[in-house]
Amino acid sequence: MTDHQPGGHMAAEIAQQPKIFADLVARRDQIAAVADVIRERKPRFVLFGARGSSDHAALYAKYLTEVLLELPAGLVSPSTTTLYGAQPDLRDVLLVSVSQSGGSPDLLEVTQSARERGALTVAVTNTASSPLNAAAELSVDIGAGVEQAVAATKTYSATLLALYLLVDAIRGGDGRAAAPLGDLAQSTLDGSVDAVSEAVQRYRFVDRVLTTGRGYSLPTALESALKLAETSYLAARAYSGADLLHGPVAAVDGETAVLAVTSKGRGGDALHDVLDVVHGRGADVVAVGSAASAVSAALRIPVPETPEEVAPILEILPVQRLAHGLALARGGDPDNPRGLKKVTQTR
Amino acid sequence: MTDHQPGGHMAAEIAQQPKIFADLVARRDQIAAVADVIRERKPRFVLFGARGSSDHAALYAKYLTEVLLELPAGLVSPSTTTLYGAQPDLRDVLLVSVSQSGGSPDLLEVTQSARERGALTVAVTNTASSPLNAAAELSVDIGAGVEQAVAATKTYSATLLALYLLVDAIRGGDGRAAAPLGDLAQSTLDGSVDAVSEAVQRYRFVDRVLTTGRGYSLPTALESALKLAETSYLAARAYSGADLLHGPVAAVDGETAVLAVTSKGRGGDALHDVLDVVHGRGADVVAVGSAASAVSAALRIPVPETPEEVAPILEILPVQRLAHGLALARGGDPDNPRGLKKVTQTR
Repeated sequence: MTDHQPGGHMAAEIAQQPKIFADLVARRDQIAAVADVIRERKPRFVLFGARGSSDHAALYAKYLTEVLLELPAGLVSPSTTTLYGAQPDLRDVLLVSVSQSGGSPDLLEVTQSARERGALTVAVTNTASSPLNAAAELSVDIGAGVEQAVAATKTYSATLLALYLLVDAIRGGDGRAAAPLGDLAQSTLDGSVDAVSEAVQRYRFVDRVLTTGRGYSLPTALESALKLAETSYLAARAYSGADLLHGPVAAVDGETAVLAVTSKGRGGDALHDVLDVVHGRGADVVAVGSAASAVSAALRIPVPETPEEVAPILEILPVQRLAHGLALARGGDPDNPRGLKKVTQTR
Repeated sequence: MTDHQPGGHMAAEIAQQPKIFADLVARRDQIAAVADVIRERKPRFVLFGARGSSDHAALYAKYLTEVLLELPAGLVSPSTTTLYGAQPDLRDVLLVSVSQSGGSPDLLEVTQSARERGALTVAVTNTASSPLNAAAELSVDIGAGVEQAVAATKTYSATLLALYLLVDAIRGGDGRAAAPLGDLAQSTLDGSVDAVSEAVQRYRFVDRVLTTGRGYSLPTALESALKLAETSYLAARAYSGADLLHGPVAAVDGETAVLAVTSKGRGGDALHDVLDVVHGRGADVVAVGSAASAVSAALRIPVPETPEEVAPILEILPVQRLAHGLALARGGDPDNPRGLKKVTQTR
């Protein structure tokens, strides 16, 4: 398009999230019907298949599965199927394949192969007509509408919400924690404008950013690093707060920008000690989340408080705005980062 | 010690690896006895618990499990147990807890909890008297001897080899692919001296390094990034070759150093296309592995050819030497990176 405003798609898609959340919560019954089938089949192990941003959504769902469903879970390494032709016995296994486009050839192959080997397969996509939906026995449509910016925003958060609603329904929940997320998403966007603008200024010339979080907030830290790397070309790395102290903290000094994701609850509490160490090494800490006010940080980006297990659905919103603002400030177009295509044809 | 030579421990420990491999292969019967117990119990799902470098060894073992044992597998998120108190049903699950020290409180809690919930538990450690060994039903001693440098080298590679021998024995193998690894490790170290020296010079002033690999070589890419980050404070990030094209490639340009791990086999073959893209963006590629000669690269670090599933046990050796040499060249002491302790007391 000749009249394209740089970042115009990404900005619009970020702003659509409150309505998408509300719509998705309103369609909870559709997701609960899928959950009913899953409950009847009584899976004993859950696997998640995903790539890129969806991999972070899958990690979130892995936590939900272990904590709320009390089932062991793992993330699929697609290459064991696509490169090495592994044929594991998948009876009693639920495979959840997560892909906004539903068009990744490797996930398609993993899903087809898993179904043949006895797994109950569910596709969670934003494209109800996709090959992945056709391959899987069950489908959940995240309903985020077409995403035009290459950097995933609304499809990421809507995938998190859909996965939460699915897991919650499998355990017999009524989706209560998710009900207010549409309104809270609007509050998150409205309430973080100034802090995000400050963070954009602060990161204008940064090169090295480390993101961190613990528990449910770790997927947000991973997604934040990816979003900053792909839109602003930063050397952004994510570490679990626990792993950070094992080694990478050696690279943290006064030149390091640390984006810490910390929400009220046990994950946020466990990050305190980590941030004390990081702060003590002179790093510049920007904290985002409902517990941001509780940690030592140079700048805090507030997020409304929620039950901890749904916090990741809101935490990412100001980070998306940060990635968008920073890409523009640095002269880029976050809608079309150099070298990226929307669907990667990896096998 | 007042007469400590910077990096002296790390250099000595790197050099010990050929003998450690040979000794471990000679103790294969001990590991096969553990494997016999596991075979009798017929696990249907395998979980690996680990932190830091051991987490990369666990990922390697996850690939082996999926491909060679044809069982679904996952990596434990310790925080779902230690922070959120998850109590999953772990009957028919094999939990392999990997820790050189056997002293991480979080892994101990995960192992104790898993055993109570029905999992068959195995500790893979370098400290046969550790609390983790006491907590697990079965143990494998990697027998690498005391490691004094903070940066793990010999305990990492010996853990890979022990996990290979364990998985191979569970499937009824005779350890054939591992038998020559002692000699091949010596050839790897001897044959890569010049190329490693060149790489040290090349990376003398680098800040941003991206490591990549596919299939079995992905754990090596992850461990390489960690090793460079913790000894030389580089902003080193690892990506699967598949994920790299989904987004992070946007950050790759002429200023980016790419360390590509590529061994002969399907993983190395699948990395070709990725390196073509990366090379086309002007990045400086250093390739390490038995397939290094087959890719476009500015510098190649050779490694002897082996069956692909044991290649990671050799691939990491020249990277350890690179991390060691680079830390010294930059004025650091790789035995004692700033801010690191040997055992992290994370919960």
